[in-house]
Amino acid sequence: MKLLVINPNSDAVFTDAIRQEALAVAAPGTEIDCVDVKSAPRFIDTCLDDLQAAPGMLRYVEQGESVYDAFVVACACDPNVDALRELTEKPVVGIGEASMMLAMMLGERFTILQTGLASVPKKRELVRKYGFQERCASLRAVDEASDAPMEQRLLDAGLRAIEEDFAEVIILGCAGFAGLADRMSERLGVPVVSGVASGVKIAEALAACGCRTSKRAKYRLDR
Amino acid sequence: MKLLVINPNSDAVFTDAIRQEALAVAAPGTEIDCVDVKSAPRFIDTCLDDLQAAPGMLRYVEQGESVYDAFVVACACDPNVDALRELTEKPVVGIGEASMMLAMMLGERFTILQTGLASVPKKRELVRKYGFQERCASLRAVDEASDAPMEQRLLDAGLRAIEEDFAEVIILGCAGFAGLADRMSERLGVPVVSGVASGVKIAEALAACGCRTSKRAKYRLDR
Amino acid sequence: MKLLVINPNSDAVFTDAIRQEALAVAAPGTEIDCVDVKSAPRFIDTCLDDLQAAPGMLRYVEQGESVYDAFVVACACDPNVDALRELTEKPVVGIGEASMMLAMMLGERFTILQTGLASVPKKRELVRKYGFQERCASLRAVDEASDAPMEQRLLDAGLRAIEEDFAEVIILGCAGFAGLADRMSERLGVPVVSGVASGVKIAEALAACGCRTSKRAKYRLDR
Amino acid sequence: MKLLVINPNSDAVFTDAIRQEALAVAAPGTEIDCVDVKSAPRFIDTCLDDLQAAPGMLRYVEQGESVYDAFVVACACDPNVDALRELTEKPVVGIGEASMMLAMMLGERFTILQTGLASVPKKRELVRKYGFQERCASLRAVDEASDAPMEQRLLDAGLRAIEEDFAEVIILGCAGFAGLADRMSERLGVPVVSGVASGVKIAEALAACGCRTSKRAKYRLDR
Amino acid sequence: MKLLVINPNSDAVFTDAIRQEALAVAAPGTEIDCVDVKSAPRFIDTCLDDLQAAPGMLRYVEQGESVYDAFVVACACDPNVDALRELTEKPVVGIGEASMMLAMMLGERFTILQTGLASVPKKRELVRKYGFQERCASLRAVDEASDAPMEQRLLDAGLRAIEEDFAEVIILGCAGFAGLADRMSERLGVPVVSGVASGVKIAEALAACGCRTSKRAKYRLDR
Amino acid sequence: MKLLVINPNSDAVFTDAIRQEALAVAAPGTEIDCVDVKSAPRFIDTCLDDLQAAPGMLRYVEQGESVYDAFVVACACDPNVDALRELTEKPVVGIGEASMMLAMMLGERFTILQTGLASVPKKRELVRKYGFQERCASLRAVDEASDAPMEQRLLDAGLRAIEEDFAEVIILGCAGFAGLADRMSERLGVPVVSGVASGVKIAEALAACGCRTSKRAKYRLDR
Repeated sequence: MKLLVINPNSDAVFTDAIRQEALAVAAPGTEIDCVDVKSAPRFIDTCLDDLQAAPGMLRYVEQGESVYDAFVVACACDPNVDALRELTEKPVVGIGEASMMLAMMLGERFTILQTGLASVPKKRELVRKYGFQERCASLRAVDEASDAPMEQRLLDAGLRAIEEDFAEVIILGCAGFAGLADRMSERLGVPVVSGVASGVKIAEALAACGCRTSKRAKYRLDR
Repeated sequence: MKLLVINPNSDAVFTDAIRQEALAVAAPGTEIDCVDVKSAPRFIDTCLDDLQAAPGMLRYVEQGESVYDAFVVACACDPNVDALRELTEKPVVGIGEASMMLAMMLGERFTILQTGLASVPKKRELVRKYGFQERCASLRAVDEASDAPMEQRLLDAGLRAIEEDFAEVIILGCAGFAGLADRMSERLGVPVVSGVASGVKIAEALAACGCRTSKRAKYRLDR
Repeated sequence: MKLLVINPNSDAVFTDAIRQEALAVAAPGTEIDCVDVKSAPRFIDTCLDDLQAAPGMLRYVEQGESVYDAFVVACACDPNVDALRELTEKPVVGIGEASMMLAMMLGERFTILQTGLASVPKKRELVRKYGFQERCASLRAVDEASDAPMEQRLLDAGLRAIEEDFAEVIILGCAGFAGLADRMSERLGVPVVSGVASGVKIAEALAACGCRTSKRAKYRLDR
Repeated sequence: MKLLVINPNSDAVFTDAIRQEALAVAAPGTEIDCVDVKSAPRFIDTCLDDLQAAPGMLRYVEQGESVYDAFVVACACDPNVDALRELTEKPVVGIGEASMMLAMMLGERFTILQTGLASVPKKRELVRKYGFQERCASLRAVDEASDAPMEQRLLDAGLRAIEEDFAEVIILGCAGFAGLADRMSERLGVPVVSGVASGVKIAEALAACGCRTSKRAKYRLDR
Repeated sequence: MKLLVINPNSDAVFTDAIRQEALAVAAPGTEIDCVDVKSAPRFIDTCLDDLQAAPGMLRYVEQGESVYDAFVVACACDPNVDALRELTEKPVVGIGEASMMLAMMLGERFTILQTGLASVPKKRELVRKYGFQERCASLRAVDEASDAPMEQRLLDAGLRAIEEDFAEVIILGCAGFAGLADRMSERLGVPVVSGVASGVKIAEALAACGCRTSKRAKYRLDR
Repeated sequence: MKLLVINPNSDAVFTDAIRQEALAVAAPGTEIDCVDVKSAPRFIDTCLDDLQAAPGMLRYVEQGESVYDAFVVACACDPNVDALRELTEKPVVGIGEASMMLAMMLGERFTILQTGLASVPKKRELVRKYGFQERCASLRAVDEASDAPMEQRLLDAGLRAIEEDFAEVIILGCAGFAGLADRMSERLGVPVVSGVASGVKIAEALAACGCRTSKRAKYRLDR
């Protein structure tokens, strides 16, 4: 099985962290290519960023359609996933949706941790788009004013989610947090789910089951 | 990786079909044991059936906890999954929930096909328990009065779901339908998701990511 | 009219408190028997507890079907109520559901007080199962670390529910709180609804109206 | 215990049917007075009708506050119930809300039968006001064009609700249908819940439990 | 175009503030008459107040039907709007609903500021009646105990809504707050939407588009 | 006041129909420019179409920001409206959202008519994004197989929405239906709301009230 993991931003350090996490969880026999979008911003946050990343992402899928068994979009806001699903019948997995799915298998309600307050409403809309709002304890941003290292700020936000919002599972709401899940889970005492790992495993699952995107309505392209 | 797939009923023919589908999608290196519950009814449908199956299911998990990396409950009503999750930190996957997750990756709305009208309300409650009702186009039962073979009746019900309820993805709502997904998908022209395959792949995903059931609240047992 | 009130746990002190509250609100002419389940745990909290209590509960209903006009399950988590409704056409009332109903007659939103944090998610799921989440201001647990007597801890939790969650009605979320409602209501200045009393009155209501459980679908047993 | 049942319209034949059903289900020791509103329309359907009935209804409650233990509004649209609850601490029960509560004890989903299409949206809004929409299979009107007797038209509509909407319980959505529940239930094979009977029993329940309307917020009048 | 703005209370100072705000936003060519209800209370808050205001409001619409192109009810609880819509085909706009609509065009979630805690549940019910609860960040009352001028208390409540509830837009939940929106918006740094202005513009919009109230079901009066 | 109405597709005939409807409802003193996107497809339907239209749409807003008081996106799927709101503080109105708002002022539930089945799921997602699903009776497509003129097919679909889905208001779900509302409303006997007219009037409303898009969170751009 061959997967293409697309980092929609242009930050190669991001891409390396993503690749590492992807390879760490891949099943034996799964080959993974990991690319980024040179013409995209270094960090994807707004709808304008999504638009800027789109052409590069579409190109990867068009060119890779006959090569890969499934595609993973490695940004937790799942940018342009719907458009990519229109392009191909091969499964396209957003790591945001994938991480919520695995989290819901581990507890009743999850909290998603974001890099900043500004990304909370967009993520809330994503949760509602998928219809998962009853399983979402809260959306929390790390303290943007703090000087502490990101991991510490994530732990602080996670702790408050557990104590104040009664979260049973924590989701790392940014692909850039790749690699932190295990350590954080040990510290927080609850499962911490990472997007890239979730996305790779769900993509494997869909490909192994021979599933293809439904072309019946939402993703139909035969005009 | 080692998975235990538990068929909660006592029908060995069922168990064979389940085993076959489980092995067909397993990743290289995944070992799968497949068992049934001798003291359970031959077919699990009602809450009373669930109660009868419970002791045998609990025993499998207690005895297998140190052996298996994850457990799969191979009945699409996900009977006793919550109780099993209290028993162990190892992931426990109900094939009902797992199949809905994969289906939601392939289209906006799914229809679940049931063996009879009586099981529709119980499945509706399951959909609501998971909070997935906005993604569910409909719940449909096959024509119980028909003499046609089950596969034909499933195709008929699936077709009506597509035409009348605008379903984009069909879920086979009974473990006993194992093995039919590919053929039906070809006939219906939309993805058809099978529970056992979904459950095995989600169990692999959780185990590969090192995820454990949250013991924070819902599944806490430390009284 | 003859009612059977089943305390699903094995604590006879519990049963006495339940019996007292049941008799206090019964209409003239209502006879009430009150029993407990010897083989059950002393306190019912988890799904595993529910399973352990099930066989004894089923036996009471099977044996009492020709004797009683309705059955009351005197645990606020409504354990095994669905299974009992499959067994008999006579009304089966869970005191959790009954107390929410009476509370909704007295104010827009209620808060349910629980004995501990661990039981909050299970109760939240119950509220969602019944579809009453828009009427639920919050679920709150008493302070488990406190040394104060339970009644004081309930008052403290109730006060916070009123002040912080804008609850208009308080529900005592455990049959073990029987007998406290009147005193607490006076102290808190809002109605406090108790489960056992609610359950007995709703059972009387159903029996007096000649209502029987629908055997059309969810509770059908004629396989 | 003394209850006042208020028929908000001016039709004395209605009032007699209501009185009969109320007395038929009352517990021993419950005294019931049954009145109608002379200045109201003969049939209550629209918001304008509700306004016309209001002054007479308010007067009954003001004058009866020291006499009655609870009030029942015997119109299935629950007109002016919120205003009456502001007037008094004694429980005020709308038969619409009461009948939905008893119905939800007997099956997963109910259908409410209306006298005409025009009253469907108002009833739908009532269901949403109470937050019970997930338990409502459908709202159906009897065939207004038919010459058949009302009972036959109700049976026809009920049958379609059972067959097409999978209703498990039927609610008679008008106080004027008093007296039909038992016969219809026998014919339809599912429980049929009548409003007046439900309202009387819920009022008894609240009064017996010593419950009073919360004056904390929604029904507060201390300006 | 000619609009009638009805202040449902009897406070002429209120009416003047309403008139001023209405005229300030009216399009060229829109004539606006602004009246109050002499027989109503000086402040409209409860359901009993609504009933008292009703006869005067109905009279204005009956008498003005041939004169005005649309009617605006200038109380943010939208009292008796449904009854007025039954009376006439001309558009009837409640300023509560209108202000929520404009607010939703400016951000994902709004907070409504109320004059006191007691009016919060009634407003929450209004939000649910319109089905806008997913767009409502919170409902907040100004500090009723404070001696500060109302504008300062509104600013304080608005600030907390922004900081604690993540509101992106503030709605002034009382017609009596007319004239404060611009200044508050500047101070708070988020849009502040006022009811009267919103109501007038939505009424203009409906009249300009030639829209008439649907008489199909909810507002039908042809009995 | 000066508005820019952007037709996101490249069909000049569309643009003319849009311009005509816009001018027909504009208030005295409102100037309206109406443009289309040359580099976009002739018809906007899919997410891929939206992406293709985006650069041209963004350019119009960037260049027009100092000239126009508000922007209207004249496609009923509201493509790229979120991105445009990030670009500017001036109000940006999608005609899909605007038409739903006006429709909700005229009846309890609306039906949106689409040009084809394929666009139904995307529109359903839009309704859910705005949180208006409880007000939506149905989404219906015209009969794509029919040879009848579009207006007849719209009437047929509208009639079925009224009869079968109990719609009280019909929304024309495509900017290309501009100009048909009045005639259809007369034929169907219920209000028919058109997108372009709604969008222009809501844009006027926001601009007249001095409203600006909230930059607090969702539409913040100050990274």
